[in-house]
Amino acid sequence: MSIPVNPPSGFRDYPPEACARREFAIRAISEVYRSFGFQAIATSAVEDLAVLTGKGGGENEKLIFKILKRGEKLDEARAAGGELADLGLRFDLTLPLSRFYAKHQSLLPHPFKAFHIGPVWRAERAQKGRYREFYQCDADIIGSESPLCEVEVISAILTAFKRLGFEDVDVHLNDRGLVYAALEQAGVPEDKRGAACVALDKLDKAPRETVLAELTELAGKTAVDALQKTLMSGAENHADYEKADAARYSQLRWISQTLAQAGWSRVRVNPSLMRGLDYYTGPVFEFRHAKLSGSLGGGGRYDKLSEKFGGPAVPACGGSIGFERLLLLLEESGVAAKISGPEFCVLVFDESLREKSLALAARLRQAGKSVDLYPGTGKLKAQFKYADAKGAAVALIIGPDEAAAGAVKAKNLKTGDERMTAVEELLRSEPQSA
Amino acid sequence: MSIPVNPPSGFRDYPPEACARREFAIRAISEVYRSFGFQAIATSAVEDLAVLTGKGGGENEKLIFKILKRGEKLDEARAAGGELADLGLRFDLTLPLSRFYAKHQSLLPHPFKAFHIGPVWRAERAQKGRYREFYQCDADIIGSESPLCEVEVISAILTAFKRLGFEDVDVHLNDRGLVYAALEQAGVPEDKRGAACVALDKLDKAPRETVLAELTELAGKTAVDALQKTLMSGAENHADYEKADAARYSQLRWISQTLAQAGWSRVRVNPSLMRGLDYYTGPVFEFRHAKLSGSLGGGGRYDKLSEKFGGPAVPACGGSIGFERLLLLLEESGVAAKISGPEFCVLVFDESLREKSLALAARLRQAGKSVDLYPGTGKLKAQFKYADAKGAAVALIIGPDEAAAGAVKAKNLKTGDERMTAVEELLRSEPQSA
Repeated sequence: MSIPVNPPSGFRDYPPEACARREFAIRAISEVYRSFGFQAIATSAVEDLAVLTGKGGGENEKLIFKILKRGEKLDEARAAGGELADLGLRFDLTLPLSRFYAKHQSLLPHPFKAFHIGPVWRAERAQKGRYREFYQCDADIIGSESPLCEVEVISAILTAFKRLGFEDVDVHLNDRGLVYAALEQAGVPEDKRGAACVALDKLDKAPRETVLAELTELAGKTAVDALQKTLMSGAENHADYEKADAARYSQLRWISQTLAQAGWSRVRVNPSLMRGLDYYTGPVFEFRHAKLSGSLGGGGRYDKLSEKFGGPAVPACGGSIGFERLLLLLEESGVAAKISGPEFCVLVFDESLREKSLALAARLRQAGKSVDLYPGTGKLKAQFKYADAKGAAVALIIGPDEAAAGAVKAKNLKTGDERMTAVEELLRSEPQSA
Repeated sequence: MSIPVNPPSGFRDYPPEACARREFAIRAISEVYRSFGFQAIATSAVEDLAVLTGKGGGENEKLIFKILKRGEKLDEARAAGGELADLGLRFDLTLPLSRFYAKHQSLLPHPFKAFHIGPVWRAERAQKGRYREFYQCDADIIGSESPLCEVEVISAILTAFKRLGFEDVDVHLNDRGLVYAALEQAGVPEDKRGAACVALDKLDKAPRETVLAELTELAGKTAVDALQKTLMSGAENHADYEKADAARYSQLRWISQTLAQAGWSRVRVNPSLMRGLDYYTGPVFEFRHAKLSGSLGGGGRYDKLSEKFGGPAVPACGGSIGFERLLLLLEESGVAAKISGPEFCVLVFDESLREKSLALAARLRQAGKSVDLYPGTGKLKAQFKYADAKGAAVALIIGPDEAAAGAVKAKNLKTGDERMTAVEELLRSEPQSA
């Protein structure tokens, strides 16, 4: 049987350079979130299917990777034609956070500002740029209904983008309740409003005519005419939209103005922004960048999600960075994925001198130096190539002459300079970067 | 339906304190591995079942969390009574690394020193201290048969333990080939040698009599008498064991002596050390600590694993830190899981002053300060409690008096000192830790 060397379709390996770029970005985002007062939490990759399914996840629920029952339970399920799976891989970080909060809230600061970075899994059809395992970087505030939460979450995410070199991120802002009010005002029947949102969500991707046709079929021409003035006008003036729910609209304006005062001027209300998930109850937002189609992330308020876990409604608001798309931007902008090489790479002249080489490496390491050691013996040319590939600053060799003199040959791999030196001198040296 | 608020059995949540402790340890281990010249890689959580099954994984293969096929393929499999799963969660990091290397080797330095940190999953029976999702921290060298690899891997792991405060880690060292030679010498038939290793592996956990009985049944009394002198003597003198394969034994001695010269004196050859995995072909090792039953990690040489992926045998050696056990030690030793709090926590006096509070937070953040903002309005007492819980150093309040004076009230949360100050002064202040 041929065993694949590729990861499964839609999954990826991360060689050192890709891994370094990802870690660099994750560290930057973590530092920003932390500096805003968000605290890191983590949850397991695997959740009970009952947590992942049911109201809230929308289309994503169809994309759950389900985990087969084991042992007798599997045999029973198979024989009875029953449910074969009991667990699943999380498809976002919001549902796990809600479960987490329901369990741990008594021990947490109140309100709770959490950040949560990790992989999620969706059984999407694999295609270029769409992965089945991808990272999300979420910041959430649970336990406060203040619109300060939206301002905090959006500011933190914009600051993370800025830290990574992207100041030109646009924020689109809307309110799920305001959308529903506009749909009601337009005469869209209550049971059709969810489907209307799904149709409106396609405005960015499909021709306007297609969306209009779909809406007309759902709600009739009169309703669609009204919606063209409110949700679909595309105009900067939202006078008609505002009338649907003045209080909600005014809150959106407050959020965008407050962000502007804090220096974030690229925030605007966009009545046609939907965001796919059913669990949003209030303001929703999305981050976009001119160089990317689709979004760089988004989020919103989900005040009812906690009810799923049997507790009362707890107000909550969170946002997520679409990490894989952010990495596309980072790669494109040429942000160096610098793999920091070791200060020294000790080469091994031959087998008779390997103990001396090892002792040199050990001594430098004990002094806190970063030291690679060529793990073998072999042609020095191959060993120098290795030291170069590792990004080492200085290659060190103890050959027979150096061994006799109790010295070390040091070759600066950038300049090519070679010199004999003593271990003590290497210990005193300032760290050199490669 | 009642939705569980607990993670599934055997899985865990990581609240801020646990999360901080884990990140602290992972960062320390990563820094040590990197300073030894190992490069970070990552692979996906999910692998094709064909990668995870077949020779090599031993008992762990039975513990794979399998992922249900999707769509038509599932319907077909169900109707035909066929295999229901096509993917699985990785149960270790060695198999994925081998697959990774088979795919990417042409782009990697040679030999390749990799480190790989992440969760793995095993469907073990859940019990105290045994988890179904746990982290491993692996360091491997692929492409060299030199015993320098063993020395490098073991030194790196011991240095990581030391960095975290554990200098008193013992290393047990053995050689799988030497064990097989001793079994052969004792007259254990070839087809019984694997089972004999499994029996010998229980020496640490089961009464000696049980193991002896099992071995006698497998190989007869004469063989067991011989094994009592070689693999089971427990003595420091390994004269009988050495005779089974003098070259392999001498290599083990070289490894332990070389490690001793580098300052690692707690390394000893232990003929009864087996390590469970079938893919080991040469030296194996295990890390132990007096405060823990079982191991703190281990590893060995697996020169044939690459053949699984259709290529030639590539020599390889790797070790793994049992991260969850290391965390037990860290918790027990009282290493503080310090959650670094923000320098400032801005409180919100009331709704009329929230814009001013936000502007203060924004200004301090733009200057690079770490600033939490209470995300709401409410009783100041609750807000002070929040600032304390977050570990902030200084709480800042703009009340009506401060607003009128264009000033800020700063309360040092450690000393309780309060004073009026100007934003400019806060900007100039040296960061205070909580």
